[in-house]
Amino acid sequence: MNTQKNDLDPLFKPKSMAVVGVPRDGYRFGGLSFLKKLQTAGFPGALYPINPKATEILGMKAYPDLPSLPEVPDLAMVSVGAGRVPDVLQSCGEIGLKHIHILTSGFNEIGTNEGRELDDRIRTISEEYGLMVVGPNCMGPYCPSSHLTAWGAIPGKNGTLGIISQSGGITQRLTEYTCSVNIGVAKAVSFGNGTVLGDIDFLQYMGEDDNVGVIAMYLESVRDGNAFLRAAGEVNLKKPVILWKGGESEAGARTAASHTGALAGGRGAWEAFFRQTGVTRVSSMNEWVDAITAFTWLAPPSGIGVFLIGGGGGNSVSYSDTCVREGLSVPQLSEDTMAVLRGSVPSAGSIAGNPLDHFRIFQDAHYLAELLDLAYKDPAIAMIVVDRLIPRMAFHLPDAPDSNPAVIQFLKGRKDGKPTVFTVDSEGGDPVLIQQGAELRARFREQEIPAFPSLDRAARALRHLVAYGRRLRLRIED
Amino acid sequence: MNTQKNDLDPLFKPKSMAVVGVPRDGYRFGGLSFLKKLQTAGFPGALYPINPKATEILGMKAYPDLPSLPEVPDLAMVSVGAGRVPDVLQSCGEIGLKHIHILTSGFNEIGTNEGRELDDRIRTISEEYGLMVVGPNCMGPYCPSSHLTAWGAIPGKNGTLGIISQSGGITQRLTEYTCSVNIGVAKAVSFGNGTVLGDIDFLQYMGEDDNVGVIAMYLESVRDGNAFLRAAGEVNLKKPVILWKGGESEAGARTAASHTGALAGGRGAWEAFFRQTGVTRVSSMNEWVDAITAFTWLAPPSGIGVFLIGGGGGNSVSYSDTCVREGLSVPQLSEDTMAVLRGSVPSAGSIAGNPLDHFRIFQDAHYLAELLDLAYKDPAIAMIVVDRLIPRMAFHLPDAPDSNPAVIQFLKGRKDGKPTVFTVDSEGGDPVLIQQGAELRARFREQEIPAFPSLDRAARALRHLVAYGRRLRLRIED
Repeated sequence: MNTQKNDLDPLFKPKSMAVVGVPRDGYRFGGLSFLKKLQTAGFPGALYPINPKATEILGMKAYPDLPSLPEVPDLAMVSVGAGRVPDVLQSCGEIGLKHIHILTSGFNEIGTNEGRELDDRIRTISEEYGLMVVGPNCMGPYCPSSHLTAWGAIPGKNGTLGIISQSGGITQRLTEYTCSVNIGVAKAVSFGNGTVLGDIDFLQYMGEDDNVGVIAMYLESVRDGNAFLRAAGEVNLKKPVILWKGGESEAGARTAASHTGALAGGRGAWEAFFRQTGVTRVSSMNEWVDAITAFTWLAPPSGIGVFLIGGGGGNSVSYSDTCVREGLSVPQLSEDTMAVLRGSVPSAGSIAGNPLDHFRIFQDAHYLAELLDLAYKDPAIAMIVVDRLIPRMAFHLPDAPDSNPAVIQFLKGRKDGKPTVFTVDSEGGDPVLIQQGAELRARFREQEIPAFPSLDRAARALRHLVAYGRRLRLRIED
Repeated sequence: MNTQKNDLDPLFKPKSMAVVGVPRDGYRFGGLSFLKKLQTAGFPGALYPINPKATEILGMKAYPDLPSLPEVPDLAMVSVGAGRVPDVLQSCGEIGLKHIHILTSGFNEIGTNEGRELDDRIRTISEEYGLMVVGPNCMGPYCPSSHLTAWGAIPGKNGTLGIISQSGGITQRLTEYTCSVNIGVAKAVSFGNGTVLGDIDFLQYMGEDDNVGVIAMYLESVRDGNAFLRAAGEVNLKKPVILWKGGESEAGARTAASHTGALAGGRGAWEAFFRQTGVTRVSSMNEWVDAITAFTWLAPPSGIGVFLIGGGGGNSVSYSDTCVREGLSVPQLSEDTMAVLRGSVPSAGSIAGNPLDHFRIFQDAHYLAELLDLAYKDPAIAMIVVDRLIPRMAFHLPDAPDSNPAVIQFLKGRKDGKPTVFTVDSEGGDPVLIQQGAELRARFREQEIPAFPSLDRAARALRHLVAYGRRLRLRIED
């Protein structure tokens, strides 16, 4: 469908909402639970529960039907049984209520004739009235800045991430995950069957939205592979698109098909898609959020050279290997840098160069700052990874004050520096060390400094960022 | 060198020890810190500090030299300056003290003529007296059951893991890591330059040791590639050898060369090594311990079919993809199993089959036990992965008692069942959820049930275990 910029705004920033299909009480998932959550979230607009058998629900006036409403709301959330949905859509169309989210399942995705016919009726009624319909069979729109948070992280966190997904569960978890690592969401939509509005519509909408800086997508299938490829390639040049394609395997695709009823596409087709569009590909929740974090807080590095700075944990060799496996390099430092370093690094027990791994780095924030300044000037270096230790017996560390606050202060003042990330690896199963690691990473993230639980994950995220930067530069040079 | 079985026992189970080169006090790393830690660890045998300028150190009688000792100790730890080490070795040889650990650095690995000459003298003196020397430039032997724990996890944990490593830092961290995930160490050795005793000696020794069930190795280089390949291939058929080859990349190798002064070998040579020997290859600390855990607590699965059981977290599609990427399969269940399942799984909102993802599994331990029993009988299934949730808002879980204790009880009584592992993924940066996840994994591990923080890591460990089992079966069929 051909949507204009801002056509979809009322889906995410409605000033008023009708909820069609709200029982008076009970615990079933659906209209009532959504209404409760909207109340909790502090949705500031008018909420209109629709239930012919009630006059009041959750302290709000209830209405018997849509025509009886005092105004035409911006958005309707529909939670009635599948067989009744077409009539509700008709009613929406008749009163000029164009933006609709259908939560209900039991359409295309269940694979019955009846389900498919109901799906078709949604399409035809929407075409007739020019309805903008999300779903059916989905959690719908989510937007912290407008308090439209009936699911996912509540109240959530406003930010610049756009999310487009075919899986409600994954979207919910992504909003919680990103919130917990200080990444805010501009808009999210779980669009289910995509009968009217689908992947391309939301992709182009978010591509045009200046509030969205990075777009995360989770798809198990697309309706029109060629059109999607074109749209994704275009949007990816405006802002990074990070796509998790679920159902790569036959087993995964078999399960995915039971979710949405659509075809998944062969592996070769998807490999070609990623190659041609330059869209970033991820395969797990961790990889997804790591990439989102890197793309949100860092500019793409100008090259592949990593400066590995450790606090004496002994990771030099393995960290070098990991970087190189990810297509990065761990180059020798320039002569100017080496000249300065040789004067400052004792020769016994540590080695001046790249990687640089010394306890002094962990304990002396001023020294680390000097090293970072050197790296920011060194033409061989495009990005820096700093390994922070969680003090434990094996490191034989003498007691020393916590140098991390000073390190964070320094970096706050050097946002102009080259992309710099931290690894804080608790290494092991000890819940105390694990929590300490989590708390330290949270402190870095509070200041929008990426912090990863392992070098494997940091290097993977940097690889994605480097590849995206390279794709942009290729395009500019065309 | 050609060692006989038990020749090396005094290195790990000494009844008495001399420590040569112990200052009276101070904080420098070396003889004194080792002695202190041995005291802390409760080393039960006689300890003899050697220092011509002291009569007492740490409350123990100090001796001026080795000949003055009242007995010939089983083991000497040597921490004098490099230039004095050959004379100390000579003295050991003269009193019949054959087992020696040289902590001191400044030999082959620093790349000077003087260093190389000192290294050569170590070799010639050892040949002359038949000395069993570990090092130089290393942390040496480590053995919790004999309280020989002067470094690493103290007091550590006795068990069946053997560790052979060229890096002291990595070995220390591995002993702590494995201890924290309830894996015990039989013997560990960090052997540094390997001038006398090297990789093959320790590999064969641990290969013959009935207390060692799994051997973990970290190597950056080997002296005799062909001989090592032969030895590793043989030992790997007796018990799994899990090798982390550090310095795969040029950058890593450059750093590694500065550690031990030896050649690292080309990538092609190492790929051939792993292919021919079937030794398990890992590339990070996490992957290493995950594999060690799987090999220690599980028998190799009889095939590649995984049954994925989830608690309703919505991971079915992505978990299937991950398993298949790791060379496992997620097969359809047998008809018998499906017949039983269809009766017990509600059709709306969940799907009977493989993967099986339903909240009831998370909340009802009895139901999970039934599913496991079905899987143990299903010929399509070789192993099971159970995804446990950390309750959080996104899952909309109604309150229910903790079902994990009953699940653990069931598994304790079914050690005859097919290999079964758990994933507990906190997903995100929230330190509270992360700690809860860590604590739940610890509860599974207390009962020797593998529990991983992500499906990626669980699937990788299972892949290694499957490959090893296949290698053993191929050999049997020869």
